Amino acid sequence: MRFSHRVDTSSPNAISLAEQQARRDGVTLTKLNDSNPTRHGLAPAGVPGVYEANPRGQSEARRALADFLSAGGADGDGVGDADGMRNDRPADPDRLYLLSSTSEAYSWLMKLLCDPGDAVLTPKPGYPLIESIARLENVDAVEYSQVYDGSWMIDIAEIEELLDASATDDEAPDIRALVLINPNNPTGSYVKPEERRRLVELCARHDVAIIADEVFYDYALEPFDGNARLAGERGVLTFALDGFSKMLAAPHAKVGWIQVSGPDDDVAEAMARLDVIADDFLPMSDIIADRIPDLLKDAVAQTSRVRERTRANLATLHALLDGDELGVVNVLRAEGGWNVLVRFPSSIDESELVLLLIHGHHATAQPGFFFDMTANGYLAVSLLPEPDVFEAGVRAILATVREALA
Amino acid sequence: MRFSHRVDTSSPNAISLAEQQARRDGVTLTKLNDSNPTRHGLAPAGVPGVYEANPRGQSEARRALADFLSAGGADGDGVGDADGMRNDRPADPDRLYLLSSTSEAYSWLMKLLCDPGDAVLTPKPGYPLIESIARLENVDAVEYSQVYDGSWMIDIAEIEELLDASATDDEAPDIRALVLINPNNPTGSYVKPEERRRLVELCARHDVAIIADEVFYDYALEPFDGNARLAGERGVLTFALDGFSKMLAAPHAKVGWIQVSGPDDDVAEAMARLDVIADDFLPMSDIIADRIPDLLKDAVAQTSRVRERTRANLATLHALLDGDELGVVNVLRAEGGWNVLVRFPSSIDESELVLLLIHGHHATAQPGFFFDMTANGYLAVSLLPEPDVFEAGVRAILATVREALA
Repeated sequence: MRFSHRVDTSSPNAISLAEQQARRDGVTLTKLNDSNPTRHGLAPAGVPGVYEANPRGQSEARRALADFLSAGGADGDGVGDADGMRNDRPADPDRLYLLSSTSEAYSWLMKLLCDPGDAVLTPKPGYPLIESIARLENVDAVEYSQVYDGSWMIDIAEIEELLDASATDDEAPDIRALVLINPNNPTGSYVKPEERRRLVELCARHDVAIIADEVFYDYALEPFDGNARLAGERGVLTFALDGFSKMLAAPHAKVGWIQVSGPDDDVAEAMARLDVIADDFLPMSDIIADRIPDLLKDAVAQTSRVRERTRANLATLHALLDGDELGVVNVLRAEGGWNVLVRFPSSIDESELVLLLIHGHHATAQPGFFFDMTANGYLAVSLLPEPDVFEAGVRAILATVREALA
Repeated sequence: MRFSHRVDTSSPNAISLAEQQARRDGVTLTKLNDSNPTRHGLAPAGVPGVYEANPRGQSEARRALADFLSAGGADGDGVGDADGMRNDRPADPDRLYLLSSTSEAYSWLMKLLCDPGDAVLTPKPGYPLIESIARLENVDAVEYSQVYDGSWMIDIAEIEELLDASATDDEAPDIRALVLINPNNPTGSYVKPEERRRLVELCARHDVAIIADEVFYDYALEPFDGNARLAGERGVLTFALDGFSKMLAAPHAKVGWIQVSGPDDDVAEAMARLDVIADDFLPMSDIIADRIPDLLKDAVAQTSRVRERTRANLATLHALLDGDELGVVNVLRAEGGWNVLVRFPSSIDESELVLLLIHGHHATAQPGFFFDMTANGYLAVSLLPEPDVFEAGVRAILATVREALA
């Protein structure tokens, strides 16, 4: 695996080597240069304890998280989704990095993998945040397509072409990672077993890492077979992202993590470098880390509560669309996540429709172009609102479409 | 002021404009695409409340922080240091950004100001973290010198030369910011009023922003006159950094902030762009933000408690060095901060001395080269340890020097 030149990996000096040896010999060294006030009895009463300053995050919180993930995560069944996939089970606390958000995880991983001008492959349609972060990291976001024919499929031939070009064509962007959102937002599509098999093989062959964003993984909207988390994948260097923002419906908690897996050599080198990045930022507050074990106890209930909401709202949406007289509005099949794509006659301009919604119904929505949909005629609609608010929103869309067609 | 190309500042589309107009008209729009579960009654019991998702951080926490800073900060006197300087007083909550650390602040500001290969000026001697972060951000850290002749001075002529070269010489690195650590680590030197006047004038003339890291500001080790925080400086675009890590002796809380000041036009453009970066990361957890007002109440006491420790240890250090028979070890004058530089005969190699410390006394320290000191013969020593631990550490250094000379 090739990594960026951003991370200083110069070999340790004689002092560092002697300190490491002392640790191995069980000798505790007094650090005469120690600037951590909590080790000298100076922590404030409001934030007691001794700060560990572990680049991967507080060890107790990581152990609790690894136990939770090993027991099946918010899915709660402890078996199931990883069966038959080449995943690490149980989750290893030493292969977890705690941080403040998946945004921060993307930022760290782009620093780890990409020099300026290098590229990551990102899904289209997709949520524009990743492109924005890539730009902030001097990284190109090269889109790969997902196509819809009743359900969404990843255009693997296109990915293969892009990876081949990256390897052979000096003019082509140098692709260092494939971003898979599992399930993707707003298409709600999971990475299917056969897609996964081919993508892992392709990435391994091209020495390209996988960044798997699985924050919506447990929010299935319909039963499905054989899907699996990429977290723990052993066939290629894989960074799986998740966090409390979706799992606990707690975006305000700011708890995210990276789970590293893959061939042992790649994992070791990736983590040595990721440790340098993590050590520069050390973002996880003890105030939060201390609460992680307890908060995890709510994860199964929270995921299930939100899933009930999204499934009920999706049923309402189908009922309202089926019952609509005009019958020109429908919803693309969504397998999971919190959002769906509502399709209306493409004779109506997306922007015009949203402006009509704003002015006529004091409601707003995101049009398909916001997610780089290839055609006009879509709105992304959240399945989270309280049932009455959700129903009123759908009725507003239907009324607006009628007005636009009138 | 010139900013980087990393931040997407494309003009808002028709929908965003209509949403902004609605806000101005006092119309509340229902967001049919809202993915914030806390606005739909779905927050977990463990993290109640509605997530505001404000890029600058929670407004209540920022108000509390602005009040605290306006009242004089951890210095506690409410007047004093800013007198006569062109500072913004009181602090404006709308010009504060809450984040997880000053490391994160450096990262954001480099993204804001620097394209790949652009440079920031950093102090030498200095703490190597900034150089490491710059490398992660594809930014060159170009060192400017501080020279010691009984106290430390910034080599302003060198900075002027570097800035002139940046403006006129295509081969020279394009300098976008001057990093001032006030007081610097490990030299403990404050930016003096005359230095500040000239540096602000130079930066304004060259369209270069100031990044002022003032985390150690309130930790004066001896009385001084006329020094001032750069926070609030109005003569040039200035980003002042501070946080709880030093102010509250709470590195484990992970609370930092940026205070933006300068000419109004520059501030407005900088903040519009910084909002985009902050909006991509939104790092401040509500779990922490909710505690900021209360934690601030401890700041004056904590700063004063730590300052008593550092001053007492510095007095001990002087007494031990004065009483040492060999009389070949002394300490460079330090005006503030948590660390001092101890000087020993340069016939002893720094690395050798530390290795002797490790093997003979089970203690370790950072040699001067770690901070890019220009000559051999220095150790950085922390003033934080409990008095007996501190005294034992100094005695170990003195004994090791004797061994090395024997």
